[in-house]
Amino acid sequence: MEKKLVIGLFGFGTVGEGIYHILQQTPSLQAGIKKICIRNAAKSRSIDAALFTTDYEVLLGDPEINLIVELIDDAAEALKIVTAAMQRGKAVVSANKKMIAENLPQLLQLQQQSKMPFLYEASVCASIPVIRNLEEYYDNDFLKSVCGIVNGSTNFILTKMEEEGLDYSKALQLAQQQGFAESNPALDVRGIDAVNKLTILLLHAYGIVARPQQLLHLGITQLHPYDAARAGEKGLKIKLTAQAVKLTNGTVAAFVLPQYVRNESQLYGVRNEFNAVVLQTTFADKQFLYGKGAGRYPTASAVLSDVSALRYQYRYEYRKWNNETKPTLTEDFYLRVYVSFNVWNEVELKDFEWVEEFFSDDVRQYLVGVIPFTKLKAATWLHKPSVSVILCPDAVVEDISARQIRKKSLELAGSHFMEKTNKTVHNLPQELVHL
Amino acid sequence: MEKKLVIGLFGFGTVGEGIYHILQQTPSLQAGIKKICIRNAAKSRSIDAALFTTDYEVLLGDPEINLIVELIDDAAEALKIVTAAMQRGKAVVSANKKMIAENLPQLLQLQQQSKMPFLYEASVCASIPVIRNLEEYYDNDFLKSVCGIVNGSTNFILTKMEEEGLDYSKALQLAQQQGFAESNPALDVRGIDAVNKLTILLLHAYGIVARPQQLLHLGITQLHPYDAARAGEKGLKIKLTAQAVKLTNGTVAAFVLPQYVRNESQLYGVRNEFNAVVLQTTFADKQFLYGKGAGRYPTASAVLSDVSALRYQYRYEYRKWNNETKPTLTEDFYLRVYVSFNVWNEVELKDFEWVEEFFSDDVRQYLVGVIPFTKLKAATWLHKPSVSVILCPDAVVEDISARQIRKKSLELAGSHFMEKTNKTVHNLPQELVHL
Repeated sequence: MEKKLVIGLFGFGTVGEGIYHILQQTPSLQAGIKKICIRNAAKSRSIDAALFTTDYEVLLGDPEINLIVELIDDAAEALKIVTAAMQRGKAVVSANKKMIAENLPQLLQLQQQSKMPFLYEASVCASIPVIRNLEEYYDNDFLKSVCGIVNGSTNFILTKMEEEGLDYSKALQLAQQQGFAESNPALDVRGIDAVNKLTILLLHAYGIVARPQQLLHLGITQLHPYDAARAGEKGLKIKLTAQAVKLTNGTVAAFVLPQYVRNESQLYGVRNEFNAVVLQTTFADKQFLYGKGAGRYPTASAVLSDVSALRYQYRYEYRKWNNETKPTLTEDFYLRVYVSFNVWNEVELKDFEWVEEFFSDDVRQYLVGVIPFTKLKAATWLHKPSVSVILCPDAVVEDISARQIRKKSLELAGSHFMEKTNKTVHNLPQELVHL
Repeated sequence: MEKKLVIGLFGFGTVGEGIYHILQQTPSLQAGIKKICIRNAAKSRSIDAALFTTDYEVLLGDPEINLIVELIDDAAEALKIVTAAMQRGKAVVSANKKMIAENLPQLLQLQQQSKMPFLYEASVCASIPVIRNLEEYYDNDFLKSVCGIVNGSTNFILTKMEEEGLDYSKALQLAQQQGFAESNPALDVRGIDAVNKLTILLLHAYGIVARPQQLLHLGITQLHPYDAARAGEKGLKIKLTAQAVKLTNGTVAAFVLPQYVRNESQLYGVRNEFNAVVLQTTFADKQFLYGKGAGRYPTASAVLSDVSALRYQYRYEYRKWNNETKPTLTEDFYLRVYVSFNVWNEVELKDFEWVEEFFSDDVRQYLVGVIPFTKLKAATWLHKPSVSVILCPDAVVEDISARQIRKKSLELAGSHFMEKTNKTVHNLPQELVHL
């Protein structure tokens, strides 16, 4: 039974305009835009001026409009619009990851109370149907982990740093010139956009409601060309990854951090503005979804797939969230990290359980070590601009009962270090010298 | 509203046993196997003998059993079981692509009449949720093409031919030793398994019901090490692709053929027994799904995702098939193909609209040309063991109004050929010599 949709559109930026044009070309969608609410009435528009209004009420108060598509930047205003729309019996489609991630409890309650569907596939990885697949297909206990490149701007910048040897600021500039980064890129490059998306993924992957601010997240601003050079030497690439990993005890670890990925990883070949997600399952091994994660038409396309699904009364059932035995978030695990810095005392070595590698040259120094997640999260050195933290390929360490290998591995690392270098090590801390 | 499922299982081979063990470990699925129907009662089993029967009626006649999971090899028996089960009000999950592809009209009618859900995600690309995504997410006009590596055995063989320089029969032997090819590999290597899967994809991608035998399909048996060597020289790989391509006029071209793929294609890196599908959409560009396409647990995992969906009354709605304006299959287009052979007269040159390249050396000869699809499909030379046909990367040619370039391109090819070779060309046909 197909429902005819009459759309009220909030926002007529890049994506909004894309949607308008696609709908014009796609009568089969059985959906048309009746009215568009914009902020700036003075701005000249490419289409019939009679379609526009600056008054929310013209859309929200129109009983014929049964679907609100919300595509504005301002998260607080977006929340107001979405809330009012659902309370007044309208279905809602949104792409506003910030608004959604920051207000999950309220939005879940709103859906329960209003019984209206609220879809937001475009909010994570744009055109890649990751939310829909997590919700519908991976709706059982078999999902071991979700690891994604969910931010196109940072992936573009990292690709340019690695492939063209640019430093961070040059690469950022290039991304801005080519339209792959905002003029104010803070949300992207500091990992905030990615952690917003991770928050949404956590809900649909595991039924976990988290606050984005509470999840450990780091961006790419502190990455040093030295780190990219190390990656190159070792055949690795640096990717900003958003991860949710179910541990053996059933709890879930979640974080956004740069990571060294190996050639064998499907994420290795994800270049420029593309997004991708690797889903690890218990029985089917790894699955990989890849596509465009940003841009006018990929985002519009995801919005329209939601619109299309609403014709058939589709809604997220949030089965995992409704499940009484859903997993909880944990901070009780360890991460294997690479840390580079200018001088040893920039990092608290005592935070680490053990150190597996250390290296020093005239440019910079680095270590590879295993650290409790809580200590990494609390570390003030994590946020020093001169300190760069990157996950190792096998990052999550659940069991450190093999801790006794610590000393041995350090001895090996030490002798390896002595063999490989003929130069004097500057400022090598006492505890490492004495191993 | 969650439904408790009581399963009657037909078949206890690799996948059936996998499902049994997973269900034992997954009480949250709310599904248990009550009875298992097998053919050979004498065979010793790893589990409680009381679970087994050889009598269909014990399962089909049990009112408590509300789901039949059908996993037997014999397509004719499978059809009987599926039909009886649905007629008697039971939901059905099957992985039998041959049975499904060969009986689509009957199975669609059966679903309409019985109102029972019939799910078969495992039948195409096993663990990759391609049917579900085509059915639910790509349920609009935006799907331009579906191109997949849908057969793990042939992909394994091609990988070994290319990476290890093995000839076809050696590579097949290796695949059999490692469990990636059946002892009777005919269905796989002749492209029949792939065309069965393409038939199912056509239904869910475009609402088209086709007979697999009517679709042009070629396997990999005729591929020559020479072709793989050419691929290597040009930085290409050979993949057996199943494709459905929507042409500009809205009709759909469909075929299974080996194809040279470029490094830029996501299919290029799909190695060994893996499967993958590239979905090209109008607005979101290409999307890529990748995962394990065969094997006990990947297949069991897909079957269990269907079981899981049935808890919530999921069913395929076949919206595209139900749509009155659905596209139709066409044979009115052209393909750009590479053809290699031992002597020129093995191939009907007059079948081609034009020839873009030709090459001859002491080992073998090849041409690259554009041929009407109907002529390729009807060509007896297509099936000569000594003739190898491989699609070029840009295979589908819709418009040949640029046919006037024919002569020019041939002249260029001819002079290029003369420049590059100093040797006498054996048996070069008159029409090419005279260019």
